[in-house]
Amino acid sequence: MKLRIAAAIALATVSIGTAAAADAPPAKGKTMADVLAASKPADWRALDPDSTLYLDLAAGGRVVIELAPAFAPLHAENIRTLAREHYWDGLAILRVQDNFVTQWGDPDGDKPDKAHPLGKASKTIAPEFERAMSRDLAFTKLPDGDVYAPEAGFSNGMPAARDPKSDKAWLAHCYGMVGAGRDTAPDSGPGTELYVVIGQAPRQLDRNIAIVGRVVQGMELLAALPRGTGALGFYEKPEQYVKIKSVRLASDVPAGERTNLEVLRTDTATFTDLVESRRNRRDDWYKVPAGHIDLCNVPIPVRAAGGDAKK
Amino acid sequence: MKLRIAAAIALATVSIGTAAAADAPPAKGKTMADVLAASKPADWRALDPDSTLYLDLAAGGRVVIELAPAFAPLHAENIRTLAREHYWDGLAILRVQDNFVTQWGDPDGDKPDKAHPLGKASKTIAPEFERAMSRDLAFTKLPDGDVYAPEAGFSNGMPAARDPKSDKAWLAHCYGMVGAGRDTAPDSGPGTELYVVIGQAPRQLDRNIAIVGRVVQGMELLAALPRGTGALGFYEKPEQYVKIKSVRLASDVPAGERTNLEVLRTDTATFTDLVESRRNRRDDWYKVPAGHIDLCNVPIPVRAAGGDAKK
Repeated sequence: MKLRIAAAIALATVSIGTAAAADAPPAKGKTMADVLAASKPADWRALDPDSTLYLDLAAGGRVVIELAPAFAPLHAENIRTLAREHYWDGLAILRVQDNFVTQWGDPDGDKPDKAHPLGKASKTIAPEFERAMSRDLAFTKLPDGDVYAPEAGFSNGMPAARDPKSDKAWLAHCYGMVGAGRDTAPDSGPGTELYVVIGQAPRQLDRNIAIVGRVVQGMELLAALPRGTGALGFYEKPEQYVKIKSVRLASDVPAGERTNLEVLRTDTATFTDLVESRRNRRDDWYKVPAGHIDLCNVPIPVRAAGGDAKK
Repeated sequence: MKLRIAAAIALATVSIGTAAAADAPPAKGKTMADVLAASKPADWRALDPDSTLYLDLAAGGRVVIELAPAFAPLHAENIRTLAREHYWDGLAILRVQDNFVTQWGDPDGDKPDKAHPLGKASKTIAPEFERAMSRDLAFTKLPDGDVYAPEAGFSNGMPAARDPKSDKAWLAHCYGMVGAGRDTAPDSGPGTELYVVIGQAPRQLDRNIAIVGRVVQGMELLAALPRGTGALGFYEKPEQYVKIKSVRLASDVPAGERTNLEVLRTDTATFTDLVESRRNRRDDWYKVPAGHIDLCNVPIPVRAAGGDAKK
């Protein structure tokens, strides 16, 4: 008995029909596989090589991160500078706290005489915890509301939230979102030490720290690491560090060594169909479709450029 | 710079004062550390040895699971029978799907001639996906609402939801919750193959499958495993299986080999204080307290019996 629990969770899974269970809504709905199979090339967008980071681990494996200059332009620019100066090469993953974050940076960052030099990058940076809710900022609103914010949805392919009252928008701490660790001072997170969410969305961090991007491929390389046994999940011994080979902007990598990916656009009818396919699952395993979905449970599909959906 | 991002997330962290930021609510609030330090012995309850499972891995390490007979009594009884017959001894973790579940059971479960015998345990079991919302079922309601259910809160130390209209209550698929994998038939999940949530809460599974308990210690042993590369995250080769040494009821283990834990009660003023301390963080790292909390972000503290809080 290889019991499935929700077989249709995997994007690769073929549609197994739209047969609706007793309590299900009308069978006109599509599964996510249906939606993706019907998607057109214009529903996808290529990653911008100037806003794509490759985190290559010394032990092998590449994590691909899309930066979010629409929300954190100063951080994006500082991170580009750090990557161009090879700041992270030879540094390490220092912290893995279960159900919270994996974090990487300079093991000697707190020792002024040994810290890796920042070069032309800034040591402090203005907080980019939220931004104005201007009209030119795309926002596809979710119909189901949100526990943490007046409005939740997607902007430029990332989970986001808005508060029309304060006229602010911000990115949301969902699984796979990448932020710039900081100390107590709001301007103390220049992007040198980055973290990624590996558990239940810690939405209490929203508006308290700058989210700088999203992992679009390779999450399993960051989420399956041994948890650190020190306070806050820091590794206690240098031999436990997970070494970083290099961090590069895609645009600084020869064409033949790039990982060319496309992300499903979140401002299209196809994406709206996808959200609906996840709000009410149509495969015959589900007996009671949820009828709702949390912001952080909506998948944002990624595929090889021009190719099949991967994840 | 060991940048912290939310230092106060760890239970062990001492309170660093109640200084409130500009936007924070009145400073009378306590941190979680304050709340736990002020807790009384009666705020804690010992685990019932007849409803506590020890999953001991062959490579070392113990996962402690509290069963949920208030919600799934038939499953609890079948799982007790399976544990007493040593059903899982020598079986394995078969599936680890990133941001979803880790699942264990019989690698040969789908081969009738090779499958591990169930003994006196049932092969099918009535679905226990929800239960009546009777008055004798404790329920501590969260003030913040829920995307998936009319009411969310805690019952007998576990995250739960209710629908007063249908008079039903059910356990919620939060991080660490354990369920009984099933095939398409609702009665096909007898508890032989169990899964635990290791990512963003897959609340769409609520009311579609029986939740049988919660991991109260050892999540890092299940969440940090290599992800399976087969469909749905199943391991593709037997040599990838993570072997199980044994699964036992605590009551069947000699007193000296037990892991004696206490869980914070969820029907007390102390727990209400704890929830509030997490809705609005009071340490000085936070600049904008969230003012709300999602059901699956509320920690349910566990400590060594009579001892210090662990996690």
